[in-house]
Amino acid sequence: MQGKLLYAQSGGVTAVINTTAAAVIETARAARVPLLAARAGILGALREELVDTRRLGRAGLAALRHTPGSAFGTCRYKLRDLTAGRAEYERLIAVFRAHDIRCLLYNGGNDSADTAQKISAAAHALGHPVRVIGVPKTVDNDLVLTDNCPGFGSVAKYVALSILEAGLDVESMHETSTRVFVMEVMGRHAGWIAAAAGLAARDAGDPPHLILFPEIPFDQAGFLARVREVVERRGFCVVVASEGVRDGDGRFLAEAGSEDAFGHRQLGGVAPVLAGLVKERLGYKCHWAVPDYLQRSARHVASAVDAEQAWAVGQAAVEYALAGRDAIMPVIRRRSDAPYRWTIEEAPLARIANREKKLPRRYISRDGYGITAAARRYLAPLIRGEAYPPYGRDGLPSYLRAALEPLPKKLPPYAA
Amino acid sequence: MQGKLLYAQSGGVTAVINTTAAAVIETARAARVPLLAARAGILGALREELVDTRRLGRAGLAALRHTPGSAFGTCRYKLRDLTAGRAEYERLIAVFRAHDIRCLLYNGGNDSADTAQKISAAAHALGHPVRVIGVPKTVDNDLVLTDNCPGFGSVAKYVALSILEAGLDVESMHETSTRVFVMEVMGRHAGWIAAAAGLAARDAGDPPHLILFPEIPFDQAGFLARVREVVERRGFCVVVASEGVRDGDGRFLAEAGSEDAFGHRQLGGVAPVLAGLVKERLGYKCHWAVPDYLQRSARHVASAVDAEQAWAVGQAAVEYALAGRDAIMPVIRRRSDAPYRWTIEEAPLARIANREKKLPRRYISRDGYGITAAARRYLAPLIRGEAYPPYGRDGLPSYLRAALEPLPKKLPPYAA
Repeated sequence: MQGKLLYAQSGGVTAVINTTAAAVIETARAARVPLLAARAGILGALREELVDTRRLGRAGLAALRHTPGSAFGTCRYKLRDLTAGRAEYERLIAVFRAHDIRCLLYNGGNDSADTAQKISAAAHALGHPVRVIGVPKTVDNDLVLTDNCPGFGSVAKYVALSILEAGLDVESMHETSTRVFVMEVMGRHAGWIAAAAGLAARDAGDPPHLILFPEIPFDQAGFLARVREVVERRGFCVVVASEGVRDGDGRFLAEAGSEDAFGHRQLGGVAPVLAGLVKERLGYKCHWAVPDYLQRSARHVASAVDAEQAWAVGQAAVEYALAGRDAIMPVIRRRSDAPYRWTIEEAPLARIANREKKLPRRYISRDGYGITAAARRYLAPLIRGEAYPPYGRDGLPSYLRAALEPLPKKLPPYAA
Repeated sequence: MQGKLLYAQSGGVTAVINTTAAAVIETARAARVPLLAARAGILGALREELVDTRRLGRAGLAALRHTPGSAFGTCRYKLRDLTAGRAEYERLIAVFRAHDIRCLLYNGGNDSADTAQKISAAAHALGHPVRVIGVPKTVDNDLVLTDNCPGFGSVAKYVALSILEAGLDVESMHETSTRVFVMEVMGRHAGWIAAAAGLAARDAGDPPHLILFPEIPFDQAGFLARVREVVERRGFCVVVASEGVRDGDGRFLAEAGSEDAFGHRQLGGVAPVLAGLVKERLGYKCHWAVPDYLQRSARHVASAVDAEQAWAVGQAAVEYALAGRDAIMPVIRRRSDAPYRWTIEEAPLARIANREKKLPRRYISRDGYGITAAARRYLAPLIRGEAYPPYGRDGLPSYLRAALEPLPKKLPPYAA
């Protein structure tokens, strides 16, 4: 192809988004196509903060592959539609023109698919056709049309093994110490991550004993009864709660709002709310954990399947770009559960943007507190294999640190 | 030696306490000395809930070595002194007599050293001499006379790599999302774990930018000024706070006490208090994490040095027992920092019990918000190497699950 490719990362990061970036860079390099990357996602494109990925050496590219976070930076930034936000699109097109950018590879979730679509449409309307390829990524696993989203398998592995380990901890001393342990996991609108924690329970009665999904309205009395029942039967109870758990009126439990003794408003967290409830109503000693960003940046124990798929979508995105495709996204299609077989195929961005794949009800057990065999069949392959990063002599992972210097600007500064 | 050894685990667990257990079992087995283990620590000894470690097969012993939590169970239980609690000691002695137990290997922290001492003294006073060997363990790293405590190196590695990874996450999107991230770590009375998180900052300006230690009274205005300064300079600020941070009046920030909108009293957590404070006073978007038990059970990324030392103290404990030693503990002596060289030697329990090693002031930077080069020299060797557990086909660590059946009881039930 003629001209250059531009790669940008968007939205919340994952443990393997940089694996996708490394695949994009390596595939473009092998095809001898120049590839730029935007700093801080679409903001960098607007501001003309672009880096030349050729400057990333062999060692840097190898390190990029196993580095969590977003090496080029990312943002949450919503483009308006063409009528309202024409100036933004004109600026983007000016930047694309100035750097001879003919195709944008936009690595993100469903909001990003929307942004990518808008850019594609605007570019055509404004007379500088820029093709757009979406590249899937999100720990939330809520993109439609793809078997799963790169990033999800690694957070799934992290939460499953974390609750496996913490479950052994709680079990060890439950008689004279903590009876109830609550771990809060990400997934504000869909319970995929909460469901993945259920993989830690290999046999009946194993922790986690109860899972609270955003798809199931929280029933306080029912929950407390189940906690009591599990403690009476097993001696302890391990709970996994999605940050998105809501009460019957649709209010997030985590946003119930609280103030400490100094009158400071505390920032939410469903785990402390649930632990306080259990302590107050049932009198059990409770502990709670909120891994927050730790879960989505835990590259130290990434799923090998996830890393492989993150690489595959990056590679396919460049191949589609070179084949002249437009307004599509490489997605993962599952061919079989066991053995897990998958292929990459293309799907139109228009069918992905602004849609959300919830955890299906058939993946949640009838009582609403666990996962089904069907959920296990779906989830199990995604956490297989350990893609460990290399470690330095200092006992810490050798992650890429040095940011590339941006290219000299060709346009006047951007005023938002 | 004649008679049997009894091994018991005590207090909070670590990622490697079972590595010590495996070393105790393997060393006793090699010496052909019968070894029992108490379930749920000293409670199991009182209740005559004992298991015969010979029943643990070769595969089980191999799995025990890399399993977090406490495989035999543990407890928090304080023995009174001999005058007040004579009945308890008499019961213990009766159990020891009934099972021909001549030496107790008690694996715990400073409270456990106290318990071990009391048992030793009482046994002599009551005419059934039972020798006692303490075996060090505690994530808090607060035992005196030992270079460090088995269990600490692994939690140190976990918190350092977790904040390294989360720091990359926060940096990725700080411009349009989270500006301040607070991670709370364990260590109610001593800031060793908080200090270890500082290892993630390899270069000036790296996260974590601020560490709050229990040894330094919290200065709200000073803290907020530093957060603002870091955000203005770097764009984001990563904070590590010990759960034991107190205000100038000695009150734990985490226990400030709060109620949510339902009037439930929330269970503490210093991270949400700090995040709420920063949000309210400085207006920055904040996120916070509380790994809680995840940090001390994170066997999936244990420090190889820690696992090696956990093994060494278990092996030495049995060797001391077989050599007829009494009322001592094998401790780690550091011979050099770089290369890290250490040996095991013995120390009297009486000099360890009920003492607490705080983080020395010279390990905390002058401003109170970071660690010094001396702290790095001390901490760095302890997190070296990755002692990974094996994983199953299901993508999760293959941890030991099956508990051994207790031996038939020879005595009437124990009524506390």
